[in-house]
Amino acid sequence: MRVTVNGETKNYRTVWMEGNTVCMIDQTKLPHIFEIYYSKPWEDTKNAIKTMIVRGAGAIGTAGAYGVVQAIQEIQDKDKLYKAILEIKNVRPTAVALQHAVDRVYQKAEEGYSAAKEEAERIAEEDISDCRQIGVHGLELIKMLGGHVATHCNAGWLAFTDLGSALAPVYLAQEQGIEVFVYVDATGPRFQGAKLTAWELKQQGAPYVLVSDNDATHFQNKEVDVVIVGADRIARNGDVVNKIGTNQRAIIANHYGIPFYVAAPLHTFDLNCTTGEDIPIEERSPDEVLYATGLTDEGKLSRVMIPLKGTPVKNPAFDVTDAELVTGIITPKGIIRACEEDIVKLFN
Amino acid sequence: MRVTVNGETKNYRTVWMEGNTVCMIDQTKLPHIFEIYYSKPWEDTKNAIKTMIVRGAGAIGTAGAYGVVQAIQEIQDKDKLYKAILEIKNVRPTAVALQHAVDRVYQKAEEGYSAAKEEAERIAEEDISDCRQIGVHGLELIKMLGGHVATHCNAGWLAFTDLGSALAPVYLAQEQGIEVFVYVDATGPRFQGAKLTAWELKQQGAPYVLVSDNDATHFQNKEVDVVIVGADRIARNGDVVNKIGTNQRAIIANHYGIPFYVAAPLHTFDLNCTTGEDIPIEERSPDEVLYATGLTDEGKLSRVMIPLKGTPVKNPAFDVTDAELVTGIITPKGIIRACEEDIVKLFN
Repeated sequence: MRVTVNGETKNYRTVWMEGNTVCMIDQTKLPHIFEIYYSKPWEDTKNAIKTMIVRGAGAIGTAGAYGVVQAIQEIQDKDKLYKAILEIKNVRPTAVALQHAVDRVYQKAEEGYSAAKEEAERIAEEDISDCRQIGVHGLELIKMLGGHVATHCNAGWLAFTDLGSALAPVYLAQEQGIEVFVYVDATGPRFQGAKLTAWELKQQGAPYVLVSDNDATHFQNKEVDVVIVGADRIARNGDVVNKIGTNQRAIIANHYGIPFYVAAPLHTFDLNCTTGEDIPIEERSPDEVLYATGLTDEGKLSRVMIPLKGTPVKNPAFDVTDAELVTGIITPKGIIRACEEDIVKLFN
Repeated sequence: MRVTVNGETKNYRTVWMEGNTVCMIDQTKLPHIFEIYYSKPWEDTKNAIKTMIVRGAGAIGTAGAYGVVQAIQEIQDKDKLYKAILEIKNVRPTAVALQHAVDRVYQKAEEGYSAAKEEAERIAEEDISDCRQIGVHGLELIKMLGGHVATHCNAGWLAFTDLGSALAPVYLAQEQGIEVFVYVDATGPRFQGAKLTAWELKQQGAPYVLVSDNDATHFQNKEVDVVIVGADRIARNGDVVNKIGTNQRAIIANHYGIPFYVAAPLHTFDLNCTTGEDIPIEERSPDEVLYATGLTDEGKLSRVMIPLKGTPVKNPAFDVTDAELVTGIITPKGIIRACEEDIVKLFN
């Protein structure tokens, strides 16, 4: 997507490969610093996923695919390669896109480096075309329900190779001159909404407002026409695992009778998980809750500790939204109900 | 309540008066720095309320009462005094305790300084005894429902002259050796949960865990036995205005069938407001959403800007929780239903 830095506008993907280097927009520095992170060897790419230099279901899928390509080039020993692959695959346990992507590229290892790299590029391209199809179907919803969209966390183009899932309908609406307005919640503890979603909407010139995570008054006041969020994994029964806070927004939207949609490419579905309870929820460092990072008054990236040091903390990165709270799932193949019947049909 | 600083334990109220100086625990510096703020003349007390050096329904009631005492001593001209009284009364528009307290003390202005000061002290004492009675009734709930209590923002002793409303049952349970555990949500954008509630629970030795505002999974997991929050104003029909985020916690608790209680002294009720819609909601500075304040790694109180400068923001400080979502209101006179019939009876 379009990025304007110091008056110069260029198109970027979130993650791409140059030679054997994985290049990614450093999402830990946004929105204050726009910088490309170059990762090599494969461990570096794995760590970039772990530390969330790259994050978001689709983007870590592509980054993981590229990481496997690097490992195939860098590691000769078969056992060591297999161990590396497992490490990449499990570096973030919740999003299934990463696991799918890693498996796909690794299956090409026998055919050699070029075949593996081609497969990784195919994953990147599919991610983008899936997002575009999600946009096409989601735009129909906006036309029907209205253009005041609430979202949570970041499921925009920074969360995918490009374009994004939940925000793709917004970007396609913009292309067609259809009025949209986005409610962005801050999405603590890491503030991906305030930092990433607000930044990317601004880059695309889409109007939005930032609200604290506690502010559901725009639901209460019926300002919101539709809620669209992303997903890290969807179980066979339609339960959705996504960024912590998604579940409570689904409950609030349902309470006020506001349609709640999940945007998801096919690699988000995990038919092996019967319900959301089967999906592992990553528990991340307490530091994410204890500290806030941002720009100091002197213009330096820094952090401040909010509560006392040593405060006991729980920090699950994701939660499970019951299928019954989900109005529908916007997939590249169309909008389906969040139920086993429709989900299984997607893959037939 | 008990405060231990540098190994020394002393008892403090949140706000008190020494001579004609209002003394208050500086809540903008907690939990990192424990410091008493001394305010004089009356404008300084008014500004301390505005900038939230003192905050919380009961505490700003008492601080406002003391501010009126100062104004009565400091201002001879009747018209100027009246203007000052109005300024104090309206410095924070949502909590009705402030307005009640200011009116009560101002009615004694004719009788002179001593009568006014006595009235202010009576307000402080009543605030504390009301909290204790709330604690007594709330403790019965804990005995009945269980001791895993979730709360929002800070309605503990820092929000009142002493003891607190929502946390009074927890402190009384501790006195009686009854097991309790408190779920504290961070309460962005100002983080009163992370900063104030976590601090005061630690000071009293009550076990707790801090979670991000997006983590309703502790409701989902049915770990929570009861939710108890405070209130800034309660309408005649039982609608509750309290810190932004209260409404969504009520919706979530109802969704999971967890009892949702509001703890409130009598001065919280405003029979002139028919429903929550009649209650003015304070819109505070966007900076509260844009910045997080806390301790730098070098140990200095500072702030960081989370999103980009100039990000458009909405920042209502309070929201309205529908009476129908409130299981009951814990008052000093007992637990009532959130409905006109029970509320009106309180005042007969």
